[in-house]
Amino acid sequence: MGSQHTDDNLAENVSLSSMRSHELVDSEEFKRQGYMVIDFIADYYRNIEKYPVRSQADPGYLSERLPESAPNNPEPIEAILQDIQNDIIPGLTHWQSPTHFAYFPSTISTAGFLGEMLTTGFNVVGFSWVSSPAATELESLVMNWLGKMLELPKCFLYSSGGGSGGGVIQGTTCEAILCTVTAARDQMLNKVGRENIGKLVVYGSDQTHCGTQKAAQIAGINPNNCRAIATMKATNFGLSPHSLLSTILKDIESGLIPFFLCATIGTTSTTAVDPIGPLCEVAKKYGIWVHVDAAYAGSACICPEFRHFIDGVEDADSFSLNAHKWFFTNMDCCCLWVKDSSALINALSTNPEYLKNKATESKQVIDFKDWQICLSRRFRALKLWLILRSYGVSNLRSFIRNHVKMAKQLEGIIAMDKRFEIVVPRTFSMVCFRLKVETICDPKLHANTNGGTNHIEDPMNELNQKLLESINASGRVYMSHAMIEGIYIIRFPVGATLTEERHLHATWKLVQEHASTILCALGGNIIDHEREE
Amino acid sequence: MGSQHTDDNLAENVSLSSMRSHELVDSEEFKRQGYMVIDFIADYYRNIEKYPVRSQADPGYLSERLPESAPNNPEPIEAILQDIQNDIIPGLTHWQSPTHFAYFPSTISTAGFLGEMLTTGFNVVGFSWVSSPAATELESLVMNWLGKMLELPKCFLYSSGGGSGGGVIQGTTCEAILCTVTAARDQMLNKVGRENIGKLVVYGSDQTHCGTQKAAQIAGINPNNCRAIATMKATNFGLSPHSLLSTILKDIESGLIPFFLCATIGTTSTTAVDPIGPLCEVAKKYGIWVHVDAAYAGSACICPEFRHFIDGVEDADSFSLNAHKWFFTNMDCCCLWVKDSSALINALSTNPEYLKNKATESKQVIDFKDWQICLSRRFRALKLWLILRSYGVSNLRSFIRNHVKMAKQLEGIIAMDKRFEIVVPRTFSMVCFRLKVETICDPKLHANTNGGTNHIEDPMNELNQKLLESINASGRVYMSHAMIEGIYIIRFPVGATLTEERHLHATWKLVQEHASTILCALGGNIIDHEREE
Repeated sequence: MGSQHTDDNLAENVSLSSMRSHELVDSEEFKRQGYMVIDFIADYYRNIEKYPVRSQADPGYLSERLPESAPNNPEPIEAILQDIQNDIIPGLTHWQSPTHFAYFPSTISTAGFLGEMLTTGFNVVGFSWVSSPAATELESLVMNWLGKMLELPKCFLYSSGGGSGGGVIQGTTCEAILCTVTAARDQMLNKVGRENIGKLVVYGSDQTHCGTQKAAQIAGINPNNCRAIATMKATNFGLSPHSLLSTILKDIESGLIPFFLCATIGTTSTTAVDPIGPLCEVAKKYGIWVHVDAAYAGSACICPEFRHFIDGVEDADSFSLNAHKWFFTNMDCCCLWVKDSSALINALSTNPEYLKNKATESKQVIDFKDWQICLSRRFRALKLWLILRSYGVSNLRSFIRNHVKMAKQLEGIIAMDKRFEIVVPRTFSMVCFRLKVETICDPKLHANTNGGTNHIEDPMNELNQKLLESINASGRVYMSHAMIEGIYIIRFPVGATLTEERHLHATWKLVQEHASTILCALGGNIIDHEREE
Repeated sequence: MGSQHTDDNLAENVSLSSMRSHELVDSEEFKRQGYMVIDFIADYYRNIEKYPVRSQADPGYLSERLPESAPNNPEPIEAILQDIQNDIIPGLTHWQSPTHFAYFPSTISTAGFLGEMLTTGFNVVGFSWVSSPAATELESLVMNWLGKMLELPKCFLYSSGGGSGGGVIQGTTCEAILCTVTAARDQMLNKVGRENIGKLVVYGSDQTHCGTQKAAQIAGINPNNCRAIATMKATNFGLSPHSLLSTILKDIESGLIPFFLCATIGTTSTTAVDPIGPLCEVAKKYGIWVHVDAAYAGSACICPEFRHFIDGVEDADSFSLNAHKWFFTNMDCCCLWVKDSSALINALSTNPEYLKNKATESKQVIDFKDWQICLSRRFRALKLWLILRSYGVSNLRSFIRNHVKMAKQLEGIIAMDKRFEIVVPRTFSMVCFRLKVETICDPKLHANTNGGTNHIEDPMNELNQKLLESINASGRVYMSHAMIEGIYIIRFPVGATLTEERHLHATWKLVQEHASTILCALGGNIIDHEREE
């Protein structure tokens, strides 16, 4: 039988170049180049403090350095690594720097790295159990291990005695929330009818991560039906169950249908904690799915002394944390547990003929493709398993405790300089501070509206924005900001893998110096008066 | 200023164990363990043919081997690697085996592996340009490189002269389609009003990948409004523009609103090709977004002789291929190009205060968080860049051509054995065949309905299912099936990185032997008569 197209004869007339694909992982060359890259990365970590933490590259810098088209012929790894050193590293913002304090930490570890290497090496695609049983089974196992470390209620774990709970590794919290929103949406639409999709309402606070709003939009929820309930500094920016209740009641009165609440343990702006138990109590009355987003702070809950922050989780429907944030797991690894996996499966399963197999039909196995957005999936459980085994529960708790201890010390040090204010009490390992002087009346400052945010009106906010930009421009440290109740705050999360106490001291000294310079320019008298050291 | 919670004092009373997190990437230990894992993976590739291709593990095998909880104390890497050898590898289905022919290839290369190592080592989170300029800029650059290799029209590329097209790396095609469905949905709802979400209709053929249906469901499209338009063997399972048109007209007549079409270049079942140009012509009249899913076959289009398969792409709105399928890029790497990035951005952007920065506000940079579902993202462009540079365009074309050449030879060999039928003409590097004997009247075969699919009624289908299961159970090869027009076919895609001609010959010999055994059991006379070799 002939081929449909004959034009690939052309291909055969083109003389095949010397290389065939099976040479692509030639053992000796794989080892030689592999060692070389291991050395390169080890050197990178050793030298990381030499680089400006926030890249100083200008927009478009790379297109000026690299060619416009791919090369026709092979180039040696040595040349490529040289270009990475010369052209890529200057464009990196060094998340692994011990003085990278922007956003939240993106932790690493040798075990996490090795786990990724093995995942990449095996390169199996674990969509169904049969497509690599170990990928599915190790994932179930480590999600149970981690679930037990967090003292998650048994209903979130896989049990040999039945039950439909369990954990699954997603890429990020955005993905995890999109899956749970979709499951919750379909569960509700099955009750009230699909035609009511436009009436569904999602709840969160004004501190909830933007990923929830985005997930709701992707899932077809009317953007007008996403409630960001106001929180207050007085209650440490936790979502009030009373506010939730009154918002729900108002929506129901308007003919809308509440269906999803995202409660947060450790918000992005200030690591605020929503009271899960009381929130679930309200939500349950209205059949609302409660997701607990503990992306950053969830890791702390492996320490018994922090576990109380997720008290009440037994009444929630799903819970997630990002092991790639504060659990020493290289990107990406979001751990999601659900109580009722059938809700996920009903919303996300597909069953095309080309994937049918006996194992699936036996109903004795999990096919994780039905627990996530994508079909294909990497064997991410390996890195989590390596981390848990290489360090053990006791060291992992120590790492977390040491970060919290350092943050506590930092909080004390900052409090000693009366020019600064700690804006909200520290809960985990992040300190939120700002420069606060009694009066500012410098017209130069008011004239200088150099972008960055739209909410800079208060001169104190402008002052802090200027301070932050000045610190970051130094290249010695990178921090980021948030805005709460109209107050511009500088966030200082401790938790990068390489951070030691000395880095905190050096960073704080730098902040003080930049503050002095800025205040000096405004009229120095107040400064020495207010500073106590 | 004190802390809100004092219970973390407990942590300080617990004596910190000896390890601090900054020791987690200790240079010497990182190198020692890194080399060890490099060696481990090199050995794995060297020995890969010793393992059964499809894992022979039983459901639950791993829970019997591993403990139920994480260890309290550290364990050495040597012990962990030993457990991977003993407990994990037996549970892997070896996608890198040269005789793994199931699903589609999941290719690898040394350059792809090194790229992943660097991504994992730097571990930057490139959601915004400022969070790592090189991550965004290299991605734009390599997407232009690859776009040029595919001769994509300029409207899909980044241009210094403006225009809003460009490429972005997603995890998988499912993700890419979900993004484009969401963009198309919002574009249409902005015209017709949000309340009409229930009327939106998605189009594909009965050969379209299940990811489109799933994406539509996640995006809140009524599952009843997903059209899987019938295709025919007579037209090689391509979607007919006439059928599309009549389906659209019928939907419009029913008051529905067409908005999205997924056309496929290289379907999963048979690598069928939908005629993009004529389909776009129909779709354009009705304002339908056309996405071209070239997940597997797109890679072939870097060879001029295959480029014609995507003729007409200039009229589509988006185009994607999975570099992790047939472009030697370790998982995951789906390349998506769009003509109008503002449609993506309008649907997917978020702009929380804590991510605001000057670069974004200057509008001179791309923030890829607004081009995808998730906020966080890995620096995937590195591996694609390493592949393009390490092998060069000319070798990459050779690899593809060699696979196609091998598939063509295979097609010829299969055609020589008259017991077999090549069910559809080969287009790229996959051969679809089945065992076809004149009469089957064995009651044993009919009694043996051992699961696997629900559509096995035809005894010929049952015979082929039995053959496939027998081949796969041997452990020497792994193939998968599809069902087209009621015919059960065995798929034989050539394209795994390590496959050489000898593996195809050995595999085919194995298929013939298993066929002989099965046919023998049915009554051997017909066999020798029909076989010609």
